[in-house]
Amino acid sequence: MRELFHDQLESIFDDLAAICSQVEVAVASATEALLKGDAEIAERVISADLEIDRARERVEDTAFSLLSLQAPVAGDLRVVVAALRMVTELERMGDLSVHVAKIARLRVPNIAVPDEIRPIVSRMAEVAEDMVARVKDVITERDVTAAIAVAKDDEEMDQLRRRSFTELLSDDWTNGVEAAVDVALLGRYYERIADHAVSVANRVVYIVTGEYPAALRA
Amino acid sequence: MRELFHDQLESIFDDLAAICSQVEVAVASATEALLKGDAEIAERVISADLEIDRARERVEDTAFSLLSLQAPVAGDLRVVVAALRMVTELERMGDLSVHVAKIARLRVPNIAVPDEIRPIVSRMAEVAEDMVARVKDVITERDVTAAIAVAKDDEEMDQLRRRSFTELLSDDWTNGVEAAVDVALLGRYYERIADHAVSVANRVVYIVTGEYPAALRA
Repeated sequence: MRELFHDQLESIFDDLAAICSQVEVAVASATEALLKGDAEIAERVISADLEIDRARERVEDTAFSLLSLQAPVAGDLRVVVAALRMVTELERMGDLSVHVAKIARLRVPNIAVPDEIRPIVSRMAEVAEDMVARVKDVITERDVTAAIAVAKDDEEMDQLRRRSFTELLSDDWTNGVEAAVDVALLGRYYERIADHAVSVANRVVYIVTGEYPAALRA
Repeated sequence: MRELFHDQLESIFDDLAAICSQVEVAVASATEALLKGDAEIAERVISADLEIDRARERVEDTAFSLLSLQAPVAGDLRVVVAALRMVTELERMGDLSVHVAKIARLRVPNIAVPDEIRPIVSRMAEVAEDMVARVKDVITERDVTAAIAVAKDDEEMDQLRRRSFTELLSDDWTNGVEAAVDVALLGRYYERIADHAVSVANRVVYIVTGEYPAALRA
């Protein structure tokens, strides 16, 4: 019984890591669509999101069946519930990539991000994508040190967001209101992807150690 | 055993309804701070959020103890897991109210929302607050009809958001980039509060009927 439980739990974690890969592609492709102004890539991100939703449903079904049939208690129970929360957050990261792709699509044949703020937006996207990639490893390896390191990247994201506001609101901003609104919302979407990445990483720390990282408690 | 389970479940729902009241106050007060440019009210929203976080922790503890000690299966299990998700969403609605309050605080002694767009932002806030109030009743009464009606309000929110973009991006917008960015982000926050309200209402439908409203499936 215990062995079966752990096999099934392992398969949930494999699925979570696979969803993380899908999210990584979504973030990378949405960013490519955004920075190239490519409607086709944007469409691909939007339609691929359905697969992430379905993968989430499969994980939820497995987790419920595990809870129903095995009735885990204490630590095991918390692990399964943590997995249910992780899959919700991963799905949300997919949704946020879709929001990025939709802004890209809305501005085609133009590019939503003006040249002068491109380095900051581009770096935000890189940080987000990197965090998602590392969360995938954290899930696969259950690596607490790597999980805690994910939160460090989030600090860079916060700095980038502040820098983007400084640019948008400076007297030198000549790109108008539309571009400013787009960049503010894009910043919000990448920031939320990063927040969720930290949260998923923290749940892995919890699963391994039984405690959330104190400094990071959300 | 069954009776104990249902008593404990009932107490979880009472707690969820109480948190919903706290969120209702948070949304209303954040809006008041925003539209009056009142830093003191904004501070109050920000510090009161800690109480919502603590109330969430209490609900989570009760739910875990219920799962551990009673090992519910099938429908009962899904109800407890739904309650865990509802509390996460309610807490998030509190966080979003804090975001509104922080924009208000940032602009004091000015008011973040320019007069010409005040009717739209003000209506967004009303819709959000009304949705939260109705979700509280939905939780208390387990009223499926009322739950489905919450989703209707969300359509008005989407329309308001579109109208706000039309205003921000029109040639007549004379309030500059900063106000436009503030209003775009405020619109996003109220929209997300509304989304979460719909989601919580849908979970009540699920708890009562065993199915999510098809048209509303998220």
